Amino acid sequence: MRAAVIADGEVAVQDRPDPEPGAGEVLVRVRAAGLNGADLHQRKGNYPAPPGSPPDIPGLELAGEVVALGPGAQRFAEGDRVMAIAGGGGQAELCVVHERQLMPVPDELDWPSAGGVPEVFTTSHDAVFTQAGLLAGERFLVHGAAGGVGTAGVQVARAAGAHVTATVRNEALHDGVRELGAHEVLAPDAYADGGPYDVVLELIGAPNIPDSLNALNTGGRIVVIGIGAGFKADLNLLALMGKRARIMASTLRPRPLEEKALTARAMERSVLPLLARGDVRVPIAETFPLDRVHDAYERFAAGGKLGKIVLVT
Amino acid sequence: MRAAVIADGEVAVQDRPDPEPGAGEVLVRVRAAGLNGADLHQRKGNYPAPPGSPPDIPGLELAGEVVALGPGAQRFAEGDRVMAIAGGGGQAELCVVHERQLMPVPDELDWPSAGGVPEVFTTSHDAVFTQAGLLAGERFLVHGAAGGVGTAGVQVARAAGAHVTATVRNEALHDGVRELGAHEVLAPDAYADGGPYDVVLELIGAPNIPDSLNALNTGGRIVVIGIGAGFKADLNLLALMGKRARIMASTLRPRPLEEKALTARAMERSVLPLLARGDVRVPIAETFPLDRVHDAYERFAAGGKLGKIVLVT
Repeated sequence: MRAAVIADGEVAVQDRPDPEPGAGEVLVRVRAAGLNGADLHQRKGNYPAPPGSPPDIPGLELAGEVVALGPGAQRFAEGDRVMAIAGGGGQAELCVVHERQLMPVPDELDWPSAGGVPEVFTTSHDAVFTQAGLLAGERFLVHGAAGGVGTAGVQVARAAGAHVTATVRNEALHDGVRELGAHEVLAPDAYADGGPYDVVLELIGAPNIPDSLNALNTGGRIVVIGIGAGFKADLNLLALMGKRARIMASTLRPRPLEEKALTARAMERSVLPLLARGDVRVPIAETFPLDRVHDAYERFAAGGKLGKIVLVT
Repeated sequence: MRAAVIADGEVAVQDRPDPEPGAGEVLVRVRAAGLNGADLHQRKGNYPAPPGSPPDIPGLELAGEVVALGPGAQRFAEGDRVMAIAGGGGQAELCVVHERQLMPVPDELDWPSAGGVPEVFTTSHDAVFTQAGLLAGERFLVHGAAGGVGTAGVQVARAAGAHVTATVRNEALHDGVRELGAHEVLAPDAYADGGPYDVVLELIGAPNIPDSLNALNTGGRIVVIGIGAGFKADLNLLALMGKRARIMASTLRPRPLEEKALTARAMERSVLPLLARGDVRVPIAETFPLDRVHDAYERFAAGGKLGKIVLVT
């Protein structure tokens, strides 16, 4: 198979042996694979793949067709359209994924959209609903809403009946985030008057924590998923006590199979119906064929876009 | 009635009009009322009573006999032995409490013990179980274990099947905390090797947060209830993400009636049976008659004790 391969801080396509599915695993002919921030970190050598994943083939998400089943795999059949988060290896013509991490692709989704669904929607849904427990009628604030996880978070929160306030640094992207369902899109320093907020999705980092806590409602929750702007936060425990608030944080990639499988089941139950109905969607900024993986990474790194960069294979 | 009254930074007994129970409320002839750290803050003028509570009669907890029922009150009958957290006013011969905040006193408890149960056991149980979700088999760390909430936390965690590690600054109190059920009692700087811990009950304050987070297990929870040593904490969001951890904090006193009532129901279900069986108990350091309320406060403020200071009326 042909695969994107990381070596010496660069990414390029090479030929690699076809992978074979082990017990409970499925071999997928990849049709689309979204890029994510973690790919850039891995290209720089800062984010090694977890054990069991190809060490040098990037790609945390993919969509494609089932072409072979490993021993005992039974959830899907050859030819089924599937998508998944993977520990790595998604940016290739073939990828092996455990069947319990796979989700069916709704008929309404084309391949580029499906390839951009798993990582950002699973991350958002897990953070905002499974962890922070956002409820209909609550006020939801997302910092860094123009990114992949942010655009997914805006949509699933809006679809679930929350009032959505988004902060976006790049003013050129404000209209796009508003079109995705945000009730307000504000500059990063302009949100404090709009609260109090019940759930804050933090995709920027530590500098936002004090103001987010100040703007939090009684019983509020801050969930930290992105820390690009810094990780050393000042936390006022008196304010946290007074608001009976919680701060939580997580990443998906190092979780064990059973926890990742649970996030996939939550997606099937709560997000795939919204995608099938068109209530939420995957904004695609640009697609690139696998051969142009270098250009795709450069486009992703340049920023200033709204929506996913997706490799199509 | 005679009541402890706070004026000009001092506390002394005065005569006051008998309170009358309103709708759903119960008039209790107080037999015992434990002292708590909040009483000292209120004596200094730093912790005003919430609306609806007597502004100058302290006392967050009490035990006694029902002597009159307000309109619609039906959970208890005259003569019943009851105990409760109150918004204030517990350190008096009579106190009005909403019936949904009252709990029955198990037959096995004498008055001083009953007067020392509500605040520390409700606070501990709510923090460790309702908020942090401690499970049997998990490792539990409590900082400041020799205080009232700490001794209650050690006991309920041990009774629920957790492994209990306690830190206590005063070495003279280590044996007493061990006798309450702690598997290890350590100096405040000696716990880091004993983890990783699944739940940390923080009763000291901000300086402990970085080391507690370092010693936390994947999926661990830190619950902050006491901040006497400081409230400005350094929080490493990268570590919080890597451990998929949560930090939560709360106080009981400002919660609305319905939330306080829920904590009383949780106590009835999960803690009163342990008290009745003698699996957990209320260590009493000293009792004082109401007339000696000044001496009781001075004894409480002096510290160095294990167990509650309780006024008996």
